[in-house]
Amino acid sequence: MLRKPYLLYLGDDVLKSDCNTALGLRDWCGEDVIGEWSHPAAKASLGLPRLTPGDAALQGAGSIVVGVAPTGGVLPEHWQDDLEAALTAGLDAVSGLHTRLASLPRLVRAAAQAGTRLVDVRNPAGAYPVGSGRKRTGRRVLTVGTDCALGKKYTALALARALRAKGAAATFRATGQTGIMIAGSGIPMDALVADFLAGAAEALSPDNDPAHWDVIEGQGSLLHPAYAAVTLGLLHGSQPDAIVLCHAPERVTIEEYPDYPIPPLSQVIDEYVRAGRLTNRNIRCVGVSINSSTLDDDGWRSYRAQLERELQLPVCDPMRGGVEPIVDALLAR
Amino acid sequence: MLRKPYLLYLGDDVLKSDCNTALGLRDWCGEDVIGEWSHPAAKASLGLPRLTPGDAALQGAGSIVVGVAPTGGVLPEHWQDDLEAALTAGLDAVSGLHTRLASLPRLVRAAAQAGTRLVDVRNPAGAYPVGSGRKRTGRRVLTVGTDCALGKKYTALALARALRAKGAAATFRATGQTGIMIAGSGIPMDALVADFLAGAAEALSPDNDPAHWDVIEGQGSLLHPAYAAVTLGLLHGSQPDAIVLCHAPERVTIEEYPDYPIPPLSQVIDEYVRAGRLTNRNIRCVGVSINSSTLDDDGWRSYRAQLERELQLPVCDPMRGGVEPIVDALLAR
Repeated sequence: MLRKPYLLYLGDDVLKSDCNTALGLRDWCGEDVIGEWSHPAAKASLGLPRLTPGDAALQGAGSIVVGVAPTGGVLPEHWQDDLEAALTAGLDAVSGLHTRLASLPRLVRAAAQAGTRLVDVRNPAGAYPVGSGRKRTGRRVLTVGTDCALGKKYTALALARALRAKGAAATFRATGQTGIMIAGSGIPMDALVADFLAGAAEALSPDNDPAHWDVIEGQGSLLHPAYAAVTLGLLHGSQPDAIVLCHAPERVTIEEYPDYPIPPLSQVIDEYVRAGRLTNRNIRCVGVSINSSTLDDDGWRSYRAQLERELQLPVCDPMRGGVEPIVDALLAR
Repeated sequence: MLRKPYLLYLGDDVLKSDCNTALGLRDWCGEDVIGEWSHPAAKASLGLPRLTPGDAALQGAGSIVVGVAPTGGVLPEHWQDDLEAALTAGLDAVSGLHTRLASLPRLVRAAAQAGTRLVDVRNPAGAYPVGSGRKRTGRRVLTVGTDCALGKKYTALALARALRAKGAAATFRATGQTGIMIAGSGIPMDALVADFLAGAAEALSPDNDPAHWDVIEGQGSLLHPAYAAVTLGLLHGSQPDAIVLCHAPERVTIEEYPDYPIPPLSQVIDEYVRAGRLTNRNIRCVGVSINSSTLDDDGWRSYRAQLERELQLPVCDPMRGGVEPIVDALLAR
């Protein structure tokens, strides 16, 4: 469990395009974001109130979150100055970077002295049991993909928000680092020991009220030669009643794997439904979520119409009109 | 890489049925086993030359291997006496127990003083890259199963031995603890971080001569609600040209998962071939390996005849007539 609300840390010398984590937090849990802070030389700003760690702590902040990816992936020395000041001011420090905060002696010392925490959300927080395969109460929808990095997190967040807007009880369940920061908790699936994948996915969406929806962030793709195992463990442990397939039309092969073509979407849906039936006989696909950013308005209209005809399913772009038709299909079951 | 030859350690107060690891080593790498040792109060013996660790070291032994599972899974204090003596005599100590040797301060100290090693084969030895999906040279056969613990390791060992007996170049590739001890190396698939499953499986059977066979020990089952992810990662990374399905006729459901029935074997084969096609379009099933220990001779004859008719594939029990028909099918490709 992460301590909210957050102070977003933007470092310095980064472009706005490096601020994806901070932008995701602002957009998806804005009510939990109290302000931003950065090195004096910083160029980027999200337009949030600028607060020193001390002021943020006085206003009730629980954590400073590294919201940007430093060039080269290594945390610069002077960013450590800022994080150390935040730890000393009483904030936890939260990061999803490859460099683990817990591997930096200065920060370990500062946290120990102040009684604050270093939270590396790439690391699983605990041990999980092996999967039981037992059917749980409550409803579950999982976002799945033709590939990595094409909108599974974004789609799940949009579905949870749209479900709640219609009065349904819904919880976003995070399986990757940015998702975990947004939700304040979750399990980084790809960092688990393989034997416990399905068991961890079971623990992520425990028994719940019969009408409650867990909206689970998908990972990887069953079509991916490196990551399909993670995808399958998450699918089996989630036991979803429904899946939403995420795709980007310009992807013809798996990214960086030119020998791995993406088959027709009807076939991809069939693969997911077949695999998911092991732990939920009633699994079905309720819609397709498209990242249409490479299409103009006419292109998107005709692509969408053709796909809806072909698949007989609602097709949406969460960034272009929202996911309401998919939510209607979910609730109509 | 483990240091052979081995001195097998049998502890004390164990039944012969607890000696599975030692029996497997005696049966499958007997030429690498120099003798046995146990506590003075021990009851079990494999009938091998009884050697003190000191004598074994003089005769060239490289490691003492814990060949039995202690009751309760915890290494008794007086077994540590024996292992400490072996480490001091110049042997590495090798174990596949849940209790890690490296967590026992006495043994850590003794190994450091003697310059010997503690090897816990449940722990992955190194870091692996993510899967590349690149096709490798050489041929590969993977044993797969309807469930766990029904003969995938045994079948792979029998296939490798039978291939070599026919003059083919063949290497057994180990993916579990006992297999790793037999082979002297390997990768414990179920203990890997999930993201690297397929990449580790790729590393396990690297490029080889075009006519060389890697015979890869399977893990888990695609039908298993807890472990299918491990199975899929191993399948994708192995890129097998051929699979051999392993089954035990008395299994009606997955063991300890009564709600998970085992479907007809033709359907199981179909699932494996569909999933394996992602990384090898030419994958096919070449035979079925049955653990027929619950059937009498008549029962086995009729079960086998019926299954061969149904599947149009050779059906063998490695313990009851060997796997030659499957090897013939492999080499006839």
